[in-house]
Amino acid sequence: MSYDLTVQDLHDLALGAAFLGTGGGGDPYVGRLMAEQELLAGGRITLVAPDELPSDALVIPTAMMGAPTVLVEKLPAGTEAVESLRTLERYLGRAAYATMPIECGGINSTIPLVVAARLGIPVVDADGMGRAFPELQMETFHVYGVSGTPMVITNEYGDSTIVNARDNRVMEWFARGVAIRMGGAAYIAEYPMDAATVQRVAIPGTLSLGIAIGRCVRAAREQHVDPFAALIEMLRATPYRHGHVIFEGKVTDVLRRTAEGFVRGHATIESSGGASSLEITFQNEHLIARLDGETRAIVPDLICVLEAETAEPITTEQVRYGQRVKVMAVSTPEIMRTPEALAVFGPEGCGLEHEFRPIEELL
Amino acid sequence: MSYDLTVQDLHDLALGAAFLGTGGGGDPYVGRLMAEQELLAGGRITLVAPDELPSDALVIPTAMMGAPTVLVEKLPAGTEAVESLRTLERYLGRAAYATMPIECGGINSTIPLVVAARLGIPVVDADGMGRAFPELQMETFHVYGVSGTPMVITNEYGDSTIVNARDNRVMEWFARGVAIRMGGAAYIAEYPMDAATVQRVAIPGTLSLGIAIGRCVRAAREQHVDPFAALIEMLRATPYRHGHVIFEGKVTDVLRRTAEGFVRGHATIESSGGASSLEITFQNEHLIARLDGETRAIVPDLICVLEAETAEPITTEQVRYGQRVKVMAVSTPEIMRTPEALAVFGPEGCGLEHEFRPIEELL
Repeated sequence: MSYDLTVQDLHDLALGAAFLGTGGGGDPYVGRLMAEQELLAGGRITLVAPDELPSDALVIPTAMMGAPTVLVEKLPAGTEAVESLRTLERYLGRAAYATMPIECGGINSTIPLVVAARLGIPVVDADGMGRAFPELQMETFHVYGVSGTPMVITNEYGDSTIVNARDNRVMEWFARGVAIRMGGAAYIAEYPMDAATVQRVAIPGTLSLGIAIGRCVRAAREQHVDPFAALIEMLRATPYRHGHVIFEGKVTDVLRRTAEGFVRGHATIESSGGASSLEITFQNEHLIARLDGETRAIVPDLICVLEAETAEPITTEQVRYGQRVKVMAVSTPEIMRTPEALAVFGPEGCGLEHEFRPIEELL
Repeated sequence: MSYDLTVQDLHDLALGAAFLGTGGGGDPYVGRLMAEQELLAGGRITLVAPDELPSDALVIPTAMMGAPTVLVEKLPAGTEAVESLRTLERYLGRAAYATMPIECGGINSTIPLVVAARLGIPVVDADGMGRAFPELQMETFHVYGVSGTPMVITNEYGDSTIVNARDNRVMEWFARGVAIRMGGAAYIAEYPMDAATVQRVAIPGTLSLGIAIGRCVRAAREQHVDPFAALIEMLRATPYRHGHVIFEGKVTDVLRRTAEGFVRGHATIESSGGASSLEITFQNEHLIARLDGETRAIVPDLICVLEAETAEPITTEQVRYGQRVKVMAVSTPEIMRTPEALAVFGPEGCGLEHEFRPIEELL
């Protein structure tokens, strides 16, 4: 089941990961270029399924940590996440068999691919969020009992910090402080775990799913059929089974500020004629969408803002006045909707004073 | 030359270190109690001179890092700095032969004594500031080329962070960020170095000097002679040779705020009748004293605010309206006044737009 990614796969993944990233995860364009460069330089990016991992395999997930707005100007050198993984290996005294994404979303779906190509190790086709979330404890790895530490944060100068914390929220708190002082975007290796743990706590198949989503939209565009209808049809056969276009309109207002290491704000989208408006609140990622004050979708379900004609995902740092968009809501897999999972990255975990209601019930 | 400290030595050191601390270094009372408790529990605190260290000795300095105002409410458990040193030992794969203070000042002269007693290792009679300074690169260790990293920061919960940085200012920047997120006061082990390096870069004899200062003031009080005159006479035979009372008056105004991990502000002292006033600016420590706008003493020379009758040092977090004080200025040793040293912890290094002028020239 393991297979090597092609340049076309990377293009598809850039779109699919940005879709699953629900506005966050950083600019998919930069991440795609970085991974593509590795392939063009002769590198290989091999995906392995969690159940293909040897039982003694150590897996070290890698990622960018910070505000996507910062990444627009502070591009990665490409060495940072490699150095994070290497530093954690030295600290643990063990070599990683593979790396893995911590989330599906923009640059964070491709950073592990770059690490894998550079180090000649495979990437596990799975992740810890099934989408993107703003904080490091918002991972199924945490929900199902894995310690995030020891973890490593590095920057483009080779500075590094190894964090050991009594729990994963404390890890997030310290690591965020360092990431802010590294300029608002830094690179991490965290939640080192063995094969059995990956099989128990990771959300399987999400890299392949990202590629499949990108491929579906590309095919629809090439065949001049509606990409939204194609996507909804395609998702029906996946664990993200309920997809709906919940709103269409023009972006009329964006409030966005980068503070405390996050980009926070909201976007207002008005329907043609201005009869109704959808407000989306975000912290790196979209958290809640309200239509004239009524909740239409809420974390952890996906809220995806897409260009109205092409279904190209629009990230929270790129959304701006005048864009014509469709907003899709998509249900998330059951592993992300258990009471334990909702306690961590449901509405309360994200600081919202709303109850979780699945989108299939809200519609 | 090595000798064991007595409970009386600790009392004297608490006063002397607070004197050398020029307002900073944290509450000497708490630090003295912690060290005393170790002696009463049967521990030993052995001072060794730098030139007594075996040539293969590894020395790991330990300290509190943070705002002294925070320490007033967030008392150390006593285990933090021990854990910092132990974590750094594990990381380096080498045991420390001894610990050492990084500065003379309040709690930071006694934290290494507690560590030494707990671990059964000696304390080097030396430090890296010859007084107290607010930041981690403001050490002779840094001035004369020693890397501060790898360094460790811990808190009372056993959380730890290991910092590796390209230079010591960056180390300060990251470590301060973590210390802030640990609640504004945390405990560090930094600048690990060998015996030859200690002999080259540390300021020797400063723990003994702190004890001698305390002993001098105590003796003067017991003999009912002027403690200020006694201190000035005693300092004349040390590398801190020029001591003067530059002002006497009543504290009439204090502005103090704890922000970004430091306590910053200024205190105004008015002479009897209000004819003239001295303004002292501080960042954890006193940085500059101006008499009616004219500089009377400036870093790295010592500016010591002392209770007018007893010569008890008053720290920046304790200074308050109505206190009757005398302000002493004291010259610092030559190792602290070289061009390299002034570049790091002279006026410019402390963010002041004034030139350094030695107090013997200002008077």
